[in-house]
Amino acid sequence: MRRFVIVGRTAKASADFSLDDLPSSSGRLDVLLRCVRAALLTSHGLRSDVLVYLVLGGSESPRVVRLGGAGLQFVRPDERSLALLVRKALERHAGGAGFVEQKPGLSVADGGLERVLADLGGACAYVLEEGAPDVRASSLGGDDLAFFIGDHLGFDETVRSELARLGALPVSVGPLSLHSDDVVTIVSNELDRRLTRGLSVPDPSPGRS
Amino acid sequence: MRRFVIVGRTAKASADFSLDDLPSSSGRLDVLLRCVRAALLTSHGLRSDVLVYLVLGGSESPRVVRLGGAGLQFVRPDERSLALLVRKALERHAGGAGFVEQKPGLSVADGGLERVLADLGGACAYVLEEGAPDVRASSLGGDDLAFFIGDHLGFDETVRSELARLGALPVSVGPLSLHSDDVVTIVSNELDRRLTRGLSVPDPSPGRS
Repeated sequence: MRRFVIVGRTAKASADFSLDDLPSSSGRLDVLLRCVRAALLTSHGLRSDVLVYLVLGGSESPRVVRLGGAGLQFVRPDERSLALLVRKALERHAGGAGFVEQKPGLSVADGGLERVLADLGGACAYVLEEGAPDVRASSLGGDDLAFFIGDHLGFDETVRSELARLGALPVSVGPLSLHSDDVVTIVSNELDRRLTRGLSVPDPSPGRS
Repeated sequence: MRRFVIVGRTAKASADFSLDDLPSSSGRLDVLLRCVRAALLTSHGLRSDVLVYLVLGGSESPRVVRLGGAGLQFVRPDERSLALLVRKALERHAGGAGFVEQKPGLSVADGGLERVLADLGGACAYVLEEGAPDVRASSLGGDDLAFFIGDHLGFDETVRSELARLGALPVSVGPLSLHSDDVVTIVSNELDRRLTRGLSVPDPSPGRS
């Protein structure tokens, strides 16, 4: 399983945003939605082995939206369609313990990052950070991987501390500071290449740490 | 200079599409707009060394929209804003010889792929194709590079022939068939890494062809 956790600092946890002015009215949910496309969709296909968590931390009562490629159907790649998908799920969500399924492959939970951490199981955690060791040279061990990625504002100190406590290993995707969805794309591509080469387990080849 | 040429087979060349139903009403211009974001924007920055050409081939009289990171200002990454930007340029365009500037960094030309080819100068041309040699193992020689990328339908035979006649070298980005904007992101990342390593000229290291 590949898990991408996109931590939104300003994204609203409620459905009261406008599709006609998504960035402003939703607290930049658009940043997170673009990550959904990058993580879940290939050309004319859905990645069945991927889970995406959107942490909506811009409201007093945060929520997490979880989307899984194994359950979802007919996901369209454009932002407006993705916004509609998430808005409907937020509208329907009436609370409950843990993740509550709103439609196949789409669940919502009350709470913030702690909800994601409780859902990770034994996944190996990585955190995307500028200047960290290159993901191409990282072993990325195991078959269950979780990548934590910040939004347009990056992580706040509380999240940083939680990820450090979790033991998330810092990795980077290159020399420039990129949009969150580009980071998802580049990490996905690295994993795709390794799977094809049979390197989903730790890579023992020389030159990789 | 990096040039990304996104060849849209169905994207309308006119401004009569709705922002509220972009994929259907525009002939999938959304596919091309996402490539604009991937090519031009970094986190809180514009790439000044990038040109993007959108070939709008879905109308009887095709057009090409050219966007340059060196001239544009305040480009927002969300699809609706990008659609508005392109729609305004298409509305304003009243014809003319070659590319006509509609605002700084944004020009429109009547015509199809031939307009792009006439604008390339001495750029080295590459065409993204599944199963082609890996971009990571390609020399990508020179400082002026043009990458031709298909839309959700891929290239038609006419375009393939024109690119073959141009001598465009086939490259690929990995084992899966990906969205066009993911391809732009992965190629950009490869180039970013090489520039940092001083490999913008052909890479003479062993193991690269």
